[in-house]
Amino acid sequence: MLNSDLLSENPNLCIFLPFYFTLWEDFNLTTTDIDTMKKLINSQSWLKKEEINLLEQYLNPDQKPSAEELKSWKNQIQFIKPQNLKNLTTLGFELAKSQQNGHEVIIQDKDLKAFQKAEKELGLIFNEAAYRFEDSHTTVTSLQQSKSSFDPKLMQEILDGSKIDLIQKVKDTLTKAEFAYHQYDKIEDQRAQVLEWCKILAKEGYGSWAFPREFGGRADMEGYFTIMETLSYHDLSMVIKFGVQFGLWGMSIYFLGTEKHHQKYLKEIGSLELPGCFAMTETNHGSNVRGLETTATYNHDDKTFTIHTPHQNARKEYIGNAALHGQKATVFAKLIINGEDYGVNAFVVPLRNKSGELHAGVEIEDCGHKMGLNGVDNGLIAFNKVLVSKDDMLDRFASVSDEGKFISSISSDNKRFFTMLGTLVGGRIGIPRSALSAAKSGLTIAIRYANTRKQFGPEGGGEVPILNYRMHQRRLMPLLAKSYAMHFALKYLTNRFLTKSEDEGQEIEALAAGMKAYGTWFATEALQECREACGGKGYLSENRISDLKNDTDVYTTFEGDNTVLMQLVAKSRLTEFKKEMGDMNFTAIFNYLTKQAKTSFAEKNPIVVRSTDDKHLLDFEFHLNAFKYREGAIVASAGQRIKRLVEDGMDSFDAVNVAQHHLVNVGQSYIERKVLEQFQLAVETTQNAACKRSLQQLCQLYALHTIEQNRGWYLEQGYMEGVKTKAIRKMVNQLCWEVRQDAIALTDAFGIPNQLLAAPIAFQS
Amino acid sequence: MLNSDLLSENPNLCIFLPFYFTLWEDFNLTTTDIDTMKKLINSQSWLKKEEINLLEQYLNPDQKPSAEELKSWKNQIQFIKPQNLKNLTTLGFELAKSQQNGHEVIIQDKDLKAFQKAEKELGLIFNEAAYRFEDSHTTVTSLQQSKSSFDPKLMQEILDGSKIDLIQKVKDTLTKAEFAYHQYDKIEDQRAQVLEWCKILAKEGYGSWAFPREFGGRADMEGYFTIMETLSYHDLSMVIKFGVQFGLWGMSIYFLGTEKHHQKYLKEIGSLELPGCFAMTETNHGSNVRGLETTATYNHDDKTFTIHTPHQNARKEYIGNAALHGQKATVFAKLIINGEDYGVNAFVVPLRNKSGELHAGVEIEDCGHKMGLNGVDNGLIAFNKVLVSKDDMLDRFASVSDEGKFISSISSDNKRFFTMLGTLVGGRIGIPRSALSAAKSGLTIAIRYANTRKQFGPEGGGEVPILNYRMHQRRLMPLLAKSYAMHFALKYLTNRFLTKSEDEGQEIEALAAGMKAYGTWFATEALQECREACGGKGYLSENRISDLKNDTDVYTTFEGDNTVLMQLVAKSRLTEFKKEMGDMNFTAIFNYLTKQAKTSFAEKNPIVVRSTDDKHLLDFEFHLNAFKYREGAIVASAGQRIKRLVEDGMDSFDAVNVAQHHLVNVGQSYIERKVLEQFQLAVETTQNAACKRSLQQLCQLYALHTIEQNRGWYLEQGYMEGVKTKAIRKMVNQLCWEVRQDAIALTDAFGIPNQLLAAPIAFQS
Repeated sequence: MLNSDLLSENPNLCIFLPFYFTLWEDFNLTTTDIDTMKKLINSQSWLKKEEINLLEQYLNPDQKPSAEELKSWKNQIQFIKPQNLKNLTTLGFELAKSQQNGHEVIIQDKDLKAFQKAEKELGLIFNEAAYRFEDSHTTVTSLQQSKSSFDPKLMQEILDGSKIDLIQKVKDTLTKAEFAYHQYDKIEDQRAQVLEWCKILAKEGYGSWAFPREFGGRADMEGYFTIMETLSYHDLSMVIKFGVQFGLWGMSIYFLGTEKHHQKYLKEIGSLELPGCFAMTETNHGSNVRGLETTATYNHDDKTFTIHTPHQNARKEYIGNAALHGQKATVFAKLIINGEDYGVNAFVVPLRNKSGELHAGVEIEDCGHKMGLNGVDNGLIAFNKVLVSKDDMLDRFASVSDEGKFISSISSDNKRFFTMLGTLVGGRIGIPRSALSAAKSGLTIAIRYANTRKQFGPEGGGEVPILNYRMHQRRLMPLLAKSYAMHFALKYLTNRFLTKSEDEGQEIEALAAGMKAYGTWFATEALQECREACGGKGYLSENRISDLKNDTDVYTTFEGDNTVLMQLVAKSRLTEFKKEMGDMNFTAIFNYLTKQAKTSFAEKNPIVVRSTDDKHLLDFEFHLNAFKYREGAIVASAGQRIKRLVEDGMDSFDAVNVAQHHLVNVGQSYIERKVLEQFQLAVETTQNAACKRSLQQLCQLYALHTIEQNRGWYLEQGYMEGVKTKAIRKMVNQLCWEVRQDAIALTDAFGIPNQLLAAPIAFQS
Repeated sequence: MLNSDLLSENPNLCIFLPFYFTLWEDFNLTTTDIDTMKKLINSQSWLKKEEINLLEQYLNPDQKPSAEELKSWKNQIQFIKPQNLKNLTTLGFELAKSQQNGHEVIIQDKDLKAFQKAEKELGLIFNEAAYRFEDSHTTVTSLQQSKSSFDPKLMQEILDGSKIDLIQKVKDTLTKAEFAYHQYDKIEDQRAQVLEWCKILAKEGYGSWAFPREFGGRADMEGYFTIMETLSYHDLSMVIKFGVQFGLWGMSIYFLGTEKHHQKYLKEIGSLELPGCFAMTETNHGSNVRGLETTATYNHDDKTFTIHTPHQNARKEYIGNAALHGQKATVFAKLIINGEDYGVNAFVVPLRNKSGELHAGVEIEDCGHKMGLNGVDNGLIAFNKVLVSKDDMLDRFASVSDEGKFISSISSDNKRFFTMLGTLVGGRIGIPRSALSAAKSGLTIAIRYANTRKQFGPEGGGEVPILNYRMHQRRLMPLLAKSYAMHFALKYLTNRFLTKSEDEGQEIEALAAGMKAYGTWFATEALQECREACGGKGYLSENRISDLKNDTDVYTTFEGDNTVLMQLVAKSRLTEFKKEMGDMNFTAIFNYLTKQAKTSFAEKNPIVVRSTDDKHLLDFEFHLNAFKYREGAIVASAGQRIKRLVEDGMDSFDAVNVAQHHLVNVGQSYIERKVLEQFQLAVETTQNAACKRSLQQLCQLYALHTIEQNRGWYLEQGYMEGVKTKAIRKMVNQLCWEVRQDAIALTDAFGIPNQLLAAPIAFQS
């Protein structure tokens, strides 16, 4: 036995202890391993014959040490308190020296070399094997910690901007005791609570914020979006119920109605005395709303419209506020006058009276349980010949004359309908802003948890916060960067919407459609990642990520299916693109642009294509150029492709279908360029140097991570070479590592009140 | 006015009608458009002065046609029932001819040319503008439909394999009235129902299926996995409760205990008379279970173990069956004998008696609401010095001798613990098989819905099933292909596990870890995509996708966090890789392999690198080579990278951290190669020609889609050039288009009973 007796007789033998311990602790000894050890033993001229025999015996699996023995070896080794000994040989040698107690160290340099060689052959070249005997082995990974490079309060001011006071006011409301979260036993309780909350919000004046002052509002549309966004740090059923009432129902009256409707309804809507619905979608027509089948048939005799649902699948579906509380609804229906169809128009239709009794001819079915948003009472509505008066037509864009004739300033039914929809584009701003808040909550919770949650660690050292692991950083830091990117992008979208001139309408609509799709996909992705990154804790409802995810999951469907919206954006981009090129022939334009792009890239070759120095990789101009190149090349190639297919005889509908995947990329690349532009602009206009530096880093991470995701495309195009995309990957890793240090501060800067975050895992130490 | 009077006077003017209609219907006329039209008008020598004036007047926005007028124009055009007229010029000319009624057609070829030119300049070159006047415009896209190329029953036989009878038996059980789905008002009701279902399953003998015959089982482990998988077409809370009781609790007794424990417990576990738990995870130790802090201190005086929870964060957490029903638990705790720590061992510890009263010293807290699986009563368990007898140690791998000494055939505490864990690897087979069933359910529902749901369509034609859209195919078909890929891969994993020799243990453990991660990430992705692809319908609970998604969401955490598992796989691959290379020096191996790979690629250049012909792209050998190359190159470069960093002086823990992202790719690429290999093998051994063809196509789609996802890597490596990755993208689109025709049959072949699918949207016509 390698016991104390033997070792005290010849303490030089101690040099073998770390080897033997490691072999028996970790290895299933192979014959190769055994041979290696035998060679080592026999190379040591200082060993006596019987010592050699003993050492060799100890390699026999039948005579392996017991668990106790193994432990005693380890204790012996640890007794010398080894520190920073890089390999087992050095450790063994130190151990041998320390045990001499008057004996002579007889191990020589050439002997040590043989140990080193054996160590290498056994695959113990990494220092882990030696570290395990240490008490407090620390590593760069272990030592990394949160360390804010800026003042989070200042950063919050940058994010909140001019609406900082309103944001605080809303937070003050939400942190009152009435708004404490509940776990609901039943869906009915949840719906009742959500209605209650909405009533309080209405009382505070938030519901009517966007309405004109004469109807109790503040005439502040920007404020309304800010309210939606801030409320979204709280329960999202409440937000959607709020949005249905004041945004969809209220705004449809405001934008599609005229003075008489405003007078009649707005005040009561804003105070929530008149809960209502926005009834557009039908079971058979969701994305393709132009095909709605509900009819509004005009009867000139009594000057009424008959609202009618022709069949079950033409019922209005998913209508918020319909199942329980809605008393009236803006109903979209095809207007029929004298048998002629004038396309989809909007009407105010009664659903139930103040006591909740259904109006004659109205049938409502509850949509029942949903993946999330169970505090919202969505329903199906069928109209069985419900009469409404001529005044109930929302007549801003079309009306019926006193003579019973259809009048509209827009002759085309389609154009008229899309003009009406265009006024309601605000929904496509409110939704991504709400999604972003939810993503910010999720990221704050997941990042805080990862900062305190420790798991694994170096041999001989303590466990390490999981946020120090590169993979965890890769999971969360790019999302954090993107949340900042989306913040500035959605601010920009809001401003463009609020200040738009008439001829910017289509651009803003496309922008909103694209931002809505991009932003809500982001939220889904971010919250899914947060759920997984928090492991079992992320699965518990108390930590809120599951609700955030489930409640926002439908945002990718709300206000238009994202995939459909991205195609809308693409079509608008193709049209825009053609328009920008003016009179030039279509083919010529494409050829020109493609050549243009290729030339500019060829000119830069090899400087840009292969350049991998940090300065270049972090350069804003490089980023934006890469985004722009991608955007331009994709839109040009998509247009060319469709054109070629059609010229070759393909039906244009089929051609667009063949290119559908391509078109989604057209939309995506356009939105990404817009987002990056705004983020860069925000960095450039930031005054505080520390905040600016941190934002710059986030912006670089957003840009490079996006390029990395699209690297297949850049490589295909020859816009970058492999050496460069690899360097970008490394740089993304590096930026993740650096941003991690600011990560807590960056989430603090979101300024989400702790009471609203609520997740216990966000408050551990 | 372009009214009937005028037109009947000179019907040739009708040629302008389609142009004017389209301009006013679609355009916001720009000055360029107006100029184009004026040029056209003035080019027509047959027009009289007043006709020219009138036509020009009609371009004045102030004198635009009314909605009624527009409609009358359209009616006029449609009156001739145009069919397949490719542009407005032809349409106008046909219209003009048809209206002549004895008049003369005075429009000549050169006039028509001017129309064509104008049409091009106005951007009306696509035929959509003309199609809208047709009655029944059909396109290739419209006409695509489901059309099975094989017999789904035969395909189902291939999938079910030798367990076809057992699968049918389980389905017969699940389609009985007792198993009808419920919507629960309260979590208590759900838990009660799930327990009830498990009792029925136990009565049918499913719970003990894997147990030896002498304990009421069938000694059929393969059957047990089949049961888990088939049950997973039903409620997943039930599946997990079932798995906790019979898989975790039962198997821990079976694999970690010895005869005495089997005698004492197995029969009652299999019949569910003794509900129990598997208590490993603690709040502070989930992934890093080696660090568990619960202690089991041996007292030789009374031969007992004292089970103790040292602090709140060392409580057992997320333990299934703990909150309500569990009477005993297999508890993992550090065994302490005489102050010496012998690592983590397992003990049977009482939680509550048959009447549900907690055992003295046991404290249990309910985990409460979760994202999903709310039918499972997960809880936290704290032990306050709970005494158990010496016999309660599960002593297959370690025990305490009569003299109070620790005995084990495995000296190393770590190795012993990982050996114990190794026997429980079945959980990492059951979980991905359950996940796959859930994904199959989701895909069946989403694909059936997309096959009947119609939205949008060509101008003048009917609406088209959304499954005919390329983008929708791209969303669902690769997932369908991957579900087949996973099916064969998990079958292979199961067989390897069941037939493993002793020295295959580590390989199988790595394989199971990797397949679990790959398979559960797949399920999460697939179900998320299904949710979105079904729009609002996918959000309603009645259509089950939301529950499938939420219930399986934690599968990526269960049985080990996927990211951690993939790193385990990577480490095993690095070790394996080194071992395969035998005695060779580590550095030499890497250099050799890297060179090897580069040479083989260089040899193939340019044939493989640029080859884009269909035969090559669809070739199994090309696919597998590409997967293998990726796997080999990634593992070699990861090893080299870590080695270089350590040699440069970095702590090995830090070096592994730096390469963490890389390591996850090592695991992923290994699993992907294994999956493809098994899928190809399954295709090759399929007898029925029609099924074989269809499986072959799915296998090609799986392979090419995976390559497409990794195309950035292949391009970086120079393994493929852009021209090839673009061709692959096209081929993926084409395969999606072709697989779509078989999609309904391919989901029918899963053989999921309609009662279990249940989603109304899966049963529309």
